[in-house]
Amino acid sequence: MANEAEIQAMRQAIRLAARGLATTLPNPVVGCVLLDPDGTVVAEGWHEQAGGPHAEVMALRAAGSRARGTTAVVTLEPCNHTGRTGPCSEALLAAGVQKVVVAVPDPTDAASGGAARLRAAGLEVETGVLAEEAERGLEPGEGNEVWLTAVRKQRPFVTWKFAATLDGRVAAQDGTSQWITSVEARSDVHRLRAQVDTMLVGVGTVLADDPLLTVRDADGNPLARQPLRVVADTHNRTPANARIRGNDAPTWIATGAEVGTIESRLRTVAAPNAAGSPQGSGGQELGTSGAPYAGGTPYGGGRRELDLHALMRQLYARECRHVLLEGGPRMAGAMVEAGLVDRVIAYLAPSLLGAGPNALMDAGITTIADVWRLDLVDVRQVGGDVRVLARPRAR
Amino acid sequence: MANEAEIQAMRQAIRLAARGLATTLPNPVVGCVLLDPDGTVVAEGWHEQAGGPHAEVMALRAAGSRARGTTAVVTLEPCNHTGRTGPCSEALLAAGVQKVVVAVPDPTDAASGGAARLRAAGLEVETGVLAEEAERGLEPGEGNEVWLTAVRKQRPFVTWKFAATLDGRVAAQDGTSQWITSVEARSDVHRLRAQVDTMLVGVGTVLADDPLLTVRDADGNPLARQPLRVVADTHNRTPANARIRGNDAPTWIATGAEVGTIESRLRTVAAPNAAGSPQGSGGQELGTSGAPYAGGTPYGGGRRELDLHALMRQLYARECRHVLLEGGPRMAGAMVEAGLVDRVIAYLAPSLLGAGPNALMDAGITTIADVWRLDLVDVRQVGGDVRVLARPRAR
Repeated sequence: MANEAEIQAMRQAIRLAARGLATTLPNPVVGCVLLDPDGTVVAEGWHEQAGGPHAEVMALRAAGSRARGTTAVVTLEPCNHTGRTGPCSEALLAAGVQKVVVAVPDPTDAASGGAARLRAAGLEVETGVLAEEAERGLEPGEGNEVWLTAVRKQRPFVTWKFAATLDGRVAAQDGTSQWITSVEARSDVHRLRAQVDTMLVGVGTVLADDPLLTVRDADGNPLARQPLRVVADTHNRTPANARIRGNDAPTWIATGAEVGTIESRLRTVAAPNAAGSPQGSGGQELGTSGAPYAGGTPYGGGRRELDLHALMRQLYARECRHVLLEGGPRMAGAMVEAGLVDRVIAYLAPSLLGAGPNALMDAGITTIADVWRLDLVDVRQVGGDVRVLARPRAR
Repeated sequence: MANEAEIQAMRQAIRLAARGLATTLPNPVVGCVLLDPDGTVVAEGWHEQAGGPHAEVMALRAAGSRARGTTAVVTLEPCNHTGRTGPCSEALLAAGVQKVVVAVPDPTDAASGGAARLRAAGLEVETGVLAEEAERGLEPGEGNEVWLTAVRKQRPFVTWKFAATLDGRVAAQDGTSQWITSVEARSDVHRLRAQVDTMLVGVGTVLADDPLLTVRDADGNPLARQPLRVVADTHNRTPANARIRGNDAPTWIATGAEVGTIESRLRTVAAPNAAGSPQGSGGQELGTSGAPYAGGTPYGGGRRELDLHALMRQLYARECRHVLLEGGPRMAGAMVEAGLVDRVIAYLAPSLLGAGPNALMDAGITTIADVWRLDLVDVRQVGGDVRVLARPRAR
């Protein structure tokens, strides 16, 4: 059993790890605290950016010769492989660390084995200490969940973000939508974008809104590091002059020819009949933001549609670990239906429209028994709006 | 200026007043604290129920002879008329109270004049002390706002409540809706119902769901006092055997013949055209909960529709002061469009449907510039759901 000092140190290590949230992808966030036998903190470290030293190495450097005889408290099992840096297991042994306390075992084939290597060298190794906190974060969304989920599922973690009115509209009936949410909520979205490595939209959104889809800082200036912009575009309909094709950030127009397609399920439009049979409001031919586009699916049209699972695999192969799904409602519906949404962030403005496209359309759910249930993770006010953070329940 | 003891006493009086929220209608909630010249609390009282003694009288009774020389701190200007009880101004004078501190002046013609009467008798009277707190409540929704608004507008205060998914659906595509929100949220709705004197639904909801619309306690048993159930039913289509016509609670089927009608604005259905022009999702012929009903308006159909302003005036004449608008989406749309919603309470489940009727339909808003903005009053978790309390901004 970890003692109280080790548990306190693990909390601190989790906090340290979170400092790397916007800079370590495609790597995990990791924090490390070195304790002397009395439980006093000797040194701290965290993984600051991909390609840079791991958390353990940062802490060992800070400790210098004082590392000898310490307990290393680390949020993720120390790696045992030589990647862009040497194995942390060997660095801990070389520094004379005597005990290692770990929150979460490393799920990767390449990096795991660190605990076994350390035990083989005679060190006491304890794992699973505050594992849930390390994965989920002490603050909602600030743990290592994104990376762990991506590695376990071998596809990027997907955060679906939407901004809507209290009645769930993402635009008015005429397609206008600027601005539903407050400036504070929009700033919050830019902080969110800064934490991902990929942003995904359907071609319908490109045709309707021609978004730039870059990350800007508080002053409105673009960040140096920009996520990959991905357009799900089965039939290569992204215009040559679309803003998303510009040099502001890397872009991938993910076409059916490149990614692969599957046969479309029926996502066609049923006009309300004269007798007024119940249709739901998901039946109209709307692009994102209510603007029209041709075709029956959100990301292409026609009989075949993009294979979203293949898209996710290919993004993973490109080292994408965190996809922010930004639009539109039918693209989100297809991702939800495919089981490819891991987190939902809703910005709800205290306003009402009574008409206009919904935040989510056509997710393949027709009856209440099949409702897609999530667990509330966090609810808070952001500016004058409500931000809801929710995690899908296992189906 | 009120002194610190008087301000503290006013806070306590506001808290006391709130104890009457479920029992005083059609009267206001009022609290009263008597302070001796040192600022010590001598006695407290609140208006417990309509027909019973006013707050001042309750406090004076509790104080007995100790009332002489005290300062009466009261949330609403003492009445000056003989209604079901005698005028409080005279009771305060008779008891020898020396000073009166008031939060909110009485807006009614019949009851006002209390402050003038007391001043004429030589007492010091201070008004406007914590007036906003007394009106809005120390806890959201727990002030005298309902009664004050009703008296000022000469129509009932209207609270519109809805329960929806995070994407704003009140039912699935096939019309099923039990249960979107948690048992805790549904209990919260019954607490809300217990605080109103009127519940309003459109006939579409009656035809679709055949609701009983009674208030039940935590054990599911009906309360002794039941709000008036009102069906907005232009053409008298409520079935003879509808559950809402039963003896469980009083009912008023408000028909066009009785209430009056106005010419319908265009609320007709535009089928999405082949080119996919933007329609919003407000164009279909849906009853509440997605079930069909015939007719182009939520509460009747045909060329004429119920005059909702006349309905409100008639409810006020029936001593109704607080209407809980419960359904459906188009009835809510008509009330919103008519400017007849004073408070919105949304229970949002962390779930997603992607199809099905929206919480609000057809409120006469077509472009984002006309979005109906509200101010967030309160956001909290109720069970596993989010409850949002919002107040419309002045248009």
